[in-house]
Amino acid sequence: MKIRKALLIIDMQKGSFTDKTPRFDTTGVVKRINALAQKFRVGELPVIFIQHDGSKWKAFVPNTSEWELLDELDVNPNDLILSKTANDAFYNSALEFKLRELEVKDLVITGCATDFCVEATIQSALVKNYNITVVKNGHTTGDRPHLKAEQVIEQYNWMWQNMIPTEGKIEVKDFEEVLMCI
Amino acid sequence: MKIRKALLIIDMQKGSFTDKTPRFDTTGVVKRINALAQKFRVGELPVIFIQHDGSKWKAFVPNTSEWELLDELDVNPNDLILSKTANDAFYNSALEFKLRELEVKDLVITGCATDFCVEATIQSALVKNYNITVVKNGHTTGDRPHLKAEQVIEQYNWMWQNMIPTEGKIEVKDFEEVLMCI
Repeated sequence: MKIRKALLIIDMQKGSFTDKTPRFDTTGVVKRINALAQKFRVGELPVIFIQHDGSKWKAFVPNTSEWELLDELDVNPNDLILSKTANDAFYNSALEFKLRELEVKDLVITGCATDFCVEATIQSALVKNYNITVVKNGHTTGDRPHLKAEQVIEQYNWMWQNMIPTEGKIEVKDFEEVLMCI
Repeated sequence: MKIRKALLIIDMQKGSFTDKTPRFDTTGVVKRINALAQKFRVGELPVIFIQHDGSKWKAFVPNTSEWELLDELDVNPNDLILSKTANDAFYNSALEFKLRELEVKDLVITGCATDFCVEATIQSALVKNYNITVVKNGHTTGDRPHLKAEQVIEQYNWMWQNMIPTEGKIEVKDFEEVLMCI
């Protein structure tokens, strides 16, 4: 059986991209995600949007504006949209079941925020033995108390490249390189 | 039943503390870990050392010098020493089973490296619903290509404080505060 690949697009929601919470290179990241998603659809590979539901903490409540996906993201009726409630998109969600159903073992990971939900989901996927490709310039975050957003992104990209493989491996690749290999 | 607390001391092994891989404030971190461990033992609470086995990658091979725990660490015959093979100390290890056996739900986490095994283990513990206390000045790492060790430590301490709780909660506390509450 051919190992199937899926594109994960994590938490690209309006509430994370406000004037008060600017993210590094949002326009570029969205453009790259749209291009990747299009290539996945053409290849009949799953495109999965993860949408955070923060009802418990009265933030990112379903059907509010901050919960909505960014208008600039292309969403196709055949794409999957899955809800999550923790940083890790696998936690108490349908994600693992869906990936098993779709026979996916390879994940291409994009989204926001690098140091929260992207990182937590990558850590979780790795110990679930998925092969992971992080799109180096396909995830973003904001400035932190002691670091600029670019520094955070650099640190996590470097760290992911240096993690110990499980039964799955983890790689960090530039958007162009990922796009070519789908 | 009273919720039991355990102290996790991750990868404080000679191979991670060489002249070529200096770590931030090693002496202070070891001193704090020793003090915490002593308090846990007095309270009849488990002290668990995690020791990385990198045989598969020909590094940190059991019974070599780099695999050994630091000489400066106090290890008691009643302490547990558990082996791991990935960044996440729970991955294919006896840790979860042991914690269940010991009826532990609260983890106090220390060790090395902040951005690798400490982080991966924290992420994993949180989605396993443990309550986590990270000792703010009880973990360490080295300088990274784009950041000083102190900056990495600051970023992760800040990030952990801001994670979304699962059924477990996550806190970052100074050594003195943790010591007082055991």
